[in-house]
This record gives sequence, structure tokens and C-alpha cells, in this order.
Amino acid sequence: MTTKIGITGAAGRMGRTLIEAIAASSDDLQLAAAIEHPESSLLGADAGELAGLGKNGVVVVASLDAVISNIDVLIDFTVPAATIANVQACAEQGIGIVIGTTGFTAEQQAIIDTAAMKTAICKASNFSTGVNVCFKLLDMAARVLGDDVDIEVYEAHHRHKVDAPSGTALSMGQVVADALDRDLDKVAVYGREGQTGARERETIGFATVRAGDIVGDHTVTFAAEGERVEITHKASSRMSFGRGAVRAAGWLKAQNAGLYDMQDVLGLK
Amino acid sequence: MTTKIGITGAAGRMGRTLIEAIAASSDDLQLAAAIEHPESSLLGADAGELAGLGKNGVVVVASLDAVISNIDVLIDFTVPAATIANVQACAEQGIGIVIGTTGFTAEQQAIIDTAAMKTAICKASNFSTGVNVCFKLLDMAARVLGDDVDIEVYEAHHRHKVDAPSGTALSMGQVVADALDRDLDKVAVYGREGQTGARERETIGFATVRAGDIVGDHTVTFAAEGERVEITHKASSRMSFGRGAVRAAGWLKAQNAGLYDMQDVLGLK
Amino acid sequence: MTTKIGITGAAGRMGRTLIEAIAASSDDLQLAAAIEHPESSLLGADAGELAGLGKNGVVVVASLDAVISNIDVLIDFTVPAATIANVQACAEQGIGIVIGTTGFTAEQQAIIDTAAMKTAICKASNFSTGVNVCFKLLDMAARVLGDDVDIEVYEAHHRHKVDAPSGTALSMGQVVADALDRDLDKVAVYGREGQTGARERETIGFATVRAGDIVGDHTVTFAAEGERVEITHKASSRMSFGRGAVRAAGWLKAQNAGLYDMQDVLGLK
Amino acid sequence: MTTKIGITGAAGRMGRTLIEAIAASSDDLQLAAAIEHPESSLLGADAGELAGLGKNGVVVVASLDAVISNIDVLIDFTVPAATIANVQACAEQGIGIVIGTTGFTAEQQAIIDTAAMKTAICKASNFSTGVNVCFKLLDMAARVLGDDVDIEVYEAHHRHKVDAPSGTALSMGQVVADALDRDLDKVAVYGREGQTGARERETIGFATVRAGDIVGDHTVTFAAEGERVEITHKASSRMSFGRGAVRAAGWLKAQNAGLYDMQDVLGLK
Repeated sequence: MTTKIGITGAAGRMGRTLIEAIAASSDDLQLAAAIEHPESSLLGADAGELAGLGKNGVVVVASLDAVISNIDVLIDFTVPAATIANVQACAEQGIGIVIGTTGFTAEQQAIIDTAAMKTAICKASNFSTGVNVCFKLLDMAARVLGDDVDIEVYEAHHRHKVDAPSGTALSMGQVVADALDRDLDKVAVYGREGQTGARERETIGFATVRAGDIVGDHTVTFAAEGERVEITHKASSRMSFGRGAVRAAGWLKAQNAGLYDMQDVLGLK
Repeated sequence: MTTKIGITGAAGRMGRTLIEAIAASSDDLQLAAAIEHPESSLLGADAGELAGLGKNGVVVVASLDAVISNIDVLIDFTVPAATIANVQACAEQGIGIVIGTTGFTAEQQAIIDTAAMKTAICKASNFSTGVNVCFKLLDMAARVLGDDVDIEVYEAHHRHKVDAPSGTALSMGQVVADALDRDLDKVAVYGREGQTGARERETIGFATVRAGDIVGDHTVTFAAEGERVEITHKASSRMSFGRGAVRAAGWLKAQNAGLYDMQDVLGLK
Repeated sequence: MTTKIGITGAAGRMGRTLIEAIAASSDDLQLAAAIEHPESSLLGADAGELAGLGKNGVVVVASLDAVISNIDVLIDFTVPAATIANVQACAEQGIGIVIGTTGFTAEQQAIIDTAAMKTAICKASNFSTGVNVCFKLLDMAARVLGDDVDIEVYEAHHRHKVDAPSGTALSMGQVVADALDRDLDKVAVYGREGQTGARERETIGFATVRAGDIVGDHTVTFAAEGERVEITHKASSRMSFGRGAVRAAGWLKAQNAGLYDMQDVLGLK
Repeated sequence: MTTKIGITGAAGRMGRTLIEAIAASSDDLQLAAAIEHPESSLLGADAGELAGLGKNGVVVVASLDAVISNIDVLIDFTVPAATIANVQACAEQGIGIVIGTTGFTAEQQAIIDTAAMKTAICKASNFSTGVNVCFKLLDMAARVLGDDVDIEVYEAHHRHKVDAPSGTALSMGQVVADALDRDLDKVAVYGREGQTGARERETIGFATVRAGDIVGDHTVTFAAEGERVEITHKASSRMSFGRGAVRAAGWLKAQNAGLYDMQDVLGLK
């Protein structure tokens, strides 16, 4: 059965990625509406051509209201205020919504929680399938290899990233620390310089690279005498998030009202 | 409780590695006997010094008989004929035996099976903990990521290796193929040259490097649009096998008569 | 001094990349014209907004003629017929041209050669600065390490690539073979399967991976007993080509009429 | 012409590696003497068998004096006091000496300098051919890529290493900084944690991993928008130093008295 999908911020970078992710997915998932803000010079453009895919007949419009009756699920990666308005419109009509926007206030979050009593909502901080799988693999590896190995987390990101280590690297460290009953705050080492002394087994080291346009590389190493096991995730484009969000949209259509996340979508809970 | 371990072929490369692995393990595991063939110029040498560790007081002797009453478990990585004689001696006395030797005839294997009715025997084709863990991780990753990804197996080994791909690489491919209900014989691709056409999703590619002294690197890549997940094993020395064999020896002491493998030792069955 | 640059195919993927590369370069390089074919729905759009950068005031137009007097250099990554027409128009007016289009007939190439007597033209099969630097590094490493090492070329590309190994991988192998006076046709090994025997020193192995959306990874390994040296290039986007083409445009403005390539631009000849 | 080589500390780990490196080198280089301290239980053992290579007929002896007339060059990786005595004995007889020992006092260094007026001496802090080649490659890459790239140095070593970053990583950073006229003390970043802000172009980051038995991995990344160039060195065993030291011994035989280093041996000066 077809899921008709609407996209807000359709002419932005994430919007174009979502258009491409829908085109690359199964035929059951179709782009049905593309919405952009009223000042854009791209209103009226063909959404497919905008995404560099060739014309697909969906024209970029300025308002969700004009097209809401055509869609089953909305995917929204915009800004909090816009997303909240869209959540309320979707909840009215029982339209599902996938929320990739971040940075909501407590008050805004409460509006989302209320809306989730009327319609199915999927909200996640990371829509990547691969990252979610890696969390599971890390948990399993840590439990079997245990205290026989040294554990180190490496991550590399582009030059514009303003914080370190990445949130994903910290989450990976947390998964490993939890599996081994360690307190990450106590065992994390964020840099090594000078006379450090030999490594202590229970520490978890983070090595951070910032360079060029690296979208996001993460490797967790489990190293023993004689061998290493490494679990790596490499993001190459927003398509990792786009594909996950589109997969969530397809899954969401069949769900009852409620608030879900990517672990629900992937069956990893 | 202490496990007293004997090692055959103690002055050989694997023997020295086992001596080192015991020294690096917990205090419960102790080297109690070191045996070498009667023609060796190293008989009478200190086993610890031989392994480059400093003296440990265990002298290399020429016969298992002379020391068998001192040990709980024998570790044997030698040649089939020698191993079979040792298996029979150990079975007589209820001494456990870890067998790393390969290349037994059917007749020799039958002797091992019979001996396993009298004593506990652990026999495996690969004693590495890391490789065994990777097999589990690969199975899990393949099941979750499924047909949304391309799967490729990369392996690199030293210049002296005479076959390709490595047995471990083929086993990794088999784990993935089994998880996805594919027939590895049909989907394996062992090289690419010329006009290959676009990749077909169900294929599993093998890329093989032979260079220098690489002990053994393996990486399985699961690649989707926008992201990759990779599971890697890197062996750096015989210590990966040595540590696994010593772990098996400690585990074996507490077991009843029977024939076991590394999956039993690691609790991965 | 400012170089005013025109771009053909401005609304296509490479065109947008070139717009982005100009914006990311020094202030001396400026986008002055953006041309697209007359049927495009994107005529009249703002070129900066089209590239996802915010408005920059350059409007997409349908004809080179209308804007040729505004530019110093044209960058053309389109199709042979269109490029040839543009080359002729630029030569008339002494406008420099950077040609990234490939697949010219001998007759078309002759037109380019003739045009290069009137204006400065840079034409290359690969505009990446990094790839061109790697060729130099490979030559140097091969000469010093010589016959003490095994040499292997690894490359990975996306699932849609139809040939193997990549042209760049073959060029890397050629550089190494030339440095060591080997005949690549005789020493290249494109896959390993079954009982291969031990490696012979003079062979150059190619290992090829096809998976997901990998833009292009290349690693050449020089491996001796005890150590490896590796030279790696990883492309992450068309920006590697875009940046090189824009660097070529800036360099071209100061050149006399003639036909140049990227080695000239980078001073590597 | 044959070079007859003596090795001090022959039964130690580096000594055995040197025995192996000689056996793996050309026939022109031969092991002629193996010396160990008088208390060793391994005196009288066959040096080849000790190195795990099978008997080679050279017996381990307790004194350099007894065998000095048999050798052309001595390789000495021991401790300063022993090395100084050996340097003096070799200088007396015009025997060349390769010095891998480190940690000399100024007074001891003066003795070496004086000895170098009588015989050829090669002294280096790192005997690896690969590391020395990498320094040259890094210099070239930095000069061509210049300020268009971000530069990061990654290194990984075993858990027992007590300082960070490694001396080799710092030397690599210094080579790059020198090539670009930067002051490494001012631009080095040894760890990143918290709100770091966007990366500044002129910084050189160091990311450090400590885990397991990693002998020594180093990668320098030059990253631009759209592409990365990486130069990597991976040490896998003492053989990288052993091979370099043996190459130095062969080269040294033909030299006049003087003090040399590995850059001289490899012709990289």
C-alpha cells in the first residue's frame, strides 16, 4: 500500500535529500507534496529537478494547508516554531509526522506529547540506521570481550564542527561503559599529552580529528594482546538520515497514535 | 583454583607464545611443564628466558612422561603424530588437552574422539576470541541491515600465504550469506576486472591483498546510500591464538570428559 | 586581481558544485555568469540559492552570448557538442576556458587544439589536486622502497560503477610500475582465488570493492617485513573536482594562449 | 662482497630480530658472531635456533673480544655502558658499528664522536626505512597542498607506552610545520573536549590511541573540501628496525670513518 509523503523545507539541503531518498526507496513510498517558505525564489520549481533528479511533477508550494489532504505522513526537518505549527495541523487531521527538527523548549515538547495522543509521531535525535545498529553491536562486543581488552573511541568530523567529541562518539562510549558497569564520567580520557604513564584497563579513550568536509567517521576499537576488533560507522551524506526518515515514514503509516523513535522503527527495542 | 599447564613444542614459535600468554594471564593459570623434542639444542634452557620474559624456573625437558603428573591440562600445537601420542597419554591419566594441531587423518580423529570419552578435550580450527566474536557481530548486522546494503569482505595477509581468500574471510562470507538466506557459491565474487556492469545487490565481493608480513586483517563492509557499517578483525601476533588457547585450558579444567570447541569456551553457542 | 568566472550547466550537479567551489575560494575568484539550457524550469532562479548557499544575485540565464562580455574564464563540464560551441565562442573573444567535459571525437579535439592558438585552455581528465599530488608521492615512494616491498593497489567505488579497477587505480599502478621499470600488463594481478601460491615480489595486486555510494577511495600499500607505508586518496564529493577546476580558472587568466592540464596548474611538471 | 656482522645482546628480543633480519637479507650479509652477557642461560645455544630459524652454526658467546676478529661490522642495541665499551673496542680495530642504543650522557656521546674519527659509525634514533621515507613524503605533500588543507596527525601505540604523542608523531608534525613555516609549539592541538569552536586552518591536531599491543601506527591526513590525502606508516614488528639496521651495516662497510645516520644510509639527504 502506498504511503504519500509531504516534505517541509523542500528546497533546503535536507529537503532535497529527502526528495532523493524517497525516489531511491521502494515504489510504495511516494513524494506527494513539497513545501517551502513563502519568500523562496524556488516556489513553483519542480521538486525533482530541484533535487537534481529530473522532473517528477510535484511543484514546490508555499503552504502545508494547500496540500495536507494529499499526504499520509509529513517529514519535517526545519526549525522548532515551524515544526510545532505543522505538528498541530497534522494532529488535527490524523496525519503522521516524522520529526527531525531539534532544539525544542519544554513547552514545545509538551505540545508534541499532546499531539501524539491524536496521531503517530516518530521523533529521534539520529535517524541513521547504521548508527542505531552499531549501538547494538558495541553492546554485544563489550559484554563478550569484557576486561580483556582496551577500548578506544575514534571520531572524525568536518572543520566546522564546534564541539568535541561528537554526540555520537559520547553515546558509543556510554553504551560500552554501561555494558561493563563503568561510570563514563570517571573513565573517559579526552586527550593525551606528555608523561601519561601506561594505560589503565578501565579507561575509555576518545581521539578526535577535525578536518576538511568529513561527514562523520566513528570507530570503536577493542584491543587485546595479539588482536583487535573494530566497529566502524562512516556517514557519507545526509542520505543516511534521509533514508532512515523515509523508512520511519513508511513504518509510521501503519501505527496507532503515539510517540515513537528509531529504535521502534528498526525493531531494536 | 590454580590450573597447572604443560606445553609441548615449547621452544618453537607457538610454544614460546603460549609461555608468554600464560605469563600474561591471571595468576590462576601457571606454566608447570615445557616439553621439546629430544634433539633440540634448547633442552635444559629456562622456559621463561627462552620466551624473552626472564627466568621462571621451568626447565625445558625432552619427555611428557617425566612431567605429566605435574600438570592439569596440556596445550599441544605440534604435528599430528606427536599430538596423537600426547592425547593418548593424557586420556590415560584424565589430563585435559587443548589441541591446536591441524591436519589429522580420519583414523587420528577417531582416536581423539575416543579419548574424549575419558578426558576433556578442546579442539578448534581458530582459537582467536576476536574472530569468534566477529562471527556473532556479522550475523546480527546482516540480519538488521538486510537487503538495504551491499556487502563486501576485504582481507590482507602476508606474502607467504598460498591460498585466497583466507579461510576466515570465507567463513565470514558464509555467516553473512546464511543470515540472508543466500547461497555463497552463487553470490561470491572473487575479483573484478574490465566491464563488470553495475553491482548486483545480492553479490558478496571478496577483495584480497597479499603483502609483507601482515598477520591477518579482515573487514566486512555493509554499505548503503549515505553510510557504511564495518566490522574489522586485525590479528597482530600468535598471541591472539595463544590467549584463546590458554583461556580454553583454564575453562577445560572444570569440565567433564567430552569434545569441546572455542564457541563452548566463550559461551557463544 | 579579480577573475570573473562563468559556468555552463549551472543548475546541474556539477554546476552547483562549481558555484559552491567559487564561493568557498578566495575573494579574487567571483561567479559572474550562470548558464543553463533553455528548457530548464530553473531559468531565472538565483544561482546561489540554487546551490544551497543563499542568494548571490547571479540569475540563471539561457545563453552564453548574453553574458560572455562579463566573464574572464568559462568553466564547462557539460557534453561535447555544447562544449565545442562554447570553446569557439570563447576563442573568438579571447576568453579562457576550463574543460571538464570528456568523450570528444578526434574532430572535436582538433577544434579545441585550434582554439588553443587563440586563447588559454585547461583540459584534464581529473581535476582533483589530491589525486595529482598522490601520483607524485607514489613515484617517490616506489623509487626509494624499490624491490624491498610488495606493492598493492586497493580501490573502492559506489555500486553504479561499471568498470574495474578504476581508471585512477590503473594510473596509480602505472606510476609505480614506471618508477620500477616493470611492465604493468605483465605484473598486474586483478583477483586472487584458490591455490595462488606465495606472492611474487614484482607483481602489483589490485583489490576492488563496489559498495553503496563510495565516491572513490584509493590506497597504495608498500609492505616490507616489519612495516607498511600507505598513500591514500579519498574523494568525498564533486568538490574535489570543483575546487581544482576553479583553481585552474584563476591560474588560466594569467596565461598566454595554449593548451594546459592540471599538472601545469599545480606546478608538478 | 660479504659483510660479516656481529650482534650484541643476541639472545634478547632485538638481538633475535637482528639475527632474523640478517637471514632474510641478501647473501652478502652474514651473521658471524653472537654475543650475550656472561650470566645468560643461553650461552652455547645455536643463534639460528634461538631466533626460531633452525640451526645456523653460530654459537652464542660471552665476549666480544673472542670474536671481534671475525666481523666487519657490529650491531649494538643494548644499554649505554655496554655500547660505549663496544664502541671503543671496535674503534681500536677499525670495525664499523651500528648503534641503536639510546640514552647516552654527554660524556658518552663525546666518546662516540671521538671513536668516529677512527671508524665508521651509524647512529640513529629510528632505523625504520618506512618512517624515513614518510618524512620525505610529508614534506612534499605539505608544500603542494599548503593552506588549502587541514592537517591532522593520528597515532596509535600499545598500552605500555608512557608518553604521548609518540616521538615519531611529533617529528611528523614538525616536518609539516617546517614545510609550511609554522611554529609547531603554537599550532599543535593535543586533545579536543567541549565547546572547541570551528577548526582554525593553521592548527595541527594530534589524536592519540593507546590500546593492546599496537606496535605503532601513524597517519597524517591532509583534508580539503571534497578530498583527503593520507600518508600512513604501520610498524608490525621490530623487523622494521632490524632490517634498517642490517641495511645500515651493509652500507657502513664501504664508508670511511665518520658519524652517519639513516638519512645518509637511504640517500635521502
